[in-house]
Amino acid sequence: METTKLHVTGMSCMGCVNSVKRVLSDLAGVQTVEIDLASGQVQIAHEAHCTPEAMRQAIEAAGYRVSA
Amino acid sequence: METTKLHVTGMSCMGCVNSVKRVLSDLAGVQTVEIDLASGQVQIAHEAHCTPEAMRQAIEAAGYRVSA
Repeated sequence: METTKLHVTGMSCMGCVNSVKRVLSDLAGVQTVEIDLASGQVQIAHEAHCTPEAMRQAIEAAGYRVSA
Repeated sequence: METTKLHVTGMSCMGCVNSVKRVLSDLAGVQTVEIDLASGQVQIAHEAHCTPEAMRQAIEAAGYRVSA
């Protein structure tokens, strides 16, 4: 199991948080997703075959942005 | 061109609205998406091959719900 931390911008309420959580949870290999709305910090526990690039694409397809 | 109206629940801010707009706009055949946050009404102008079922799936994959 690996842990990836991303900073996501554009989330402004718990509906946004749930949306990001949902699209990440739907990726194959993702185990858990923790999101802090105030800071935009997202922590994903996942199998090695699930890449940060796949996570970024899923988040951006849902209308949010991943900042470096 | 056809027009489909859906009622979406779970959107509570403009970040949610943008997320729903984004996932619908990414569907093949969707031309325009108009969303009223207060009422949850979503109006989609689209080609005939883009089905309401595809729209519902995209909205629910993003963590929102379509009510009848």
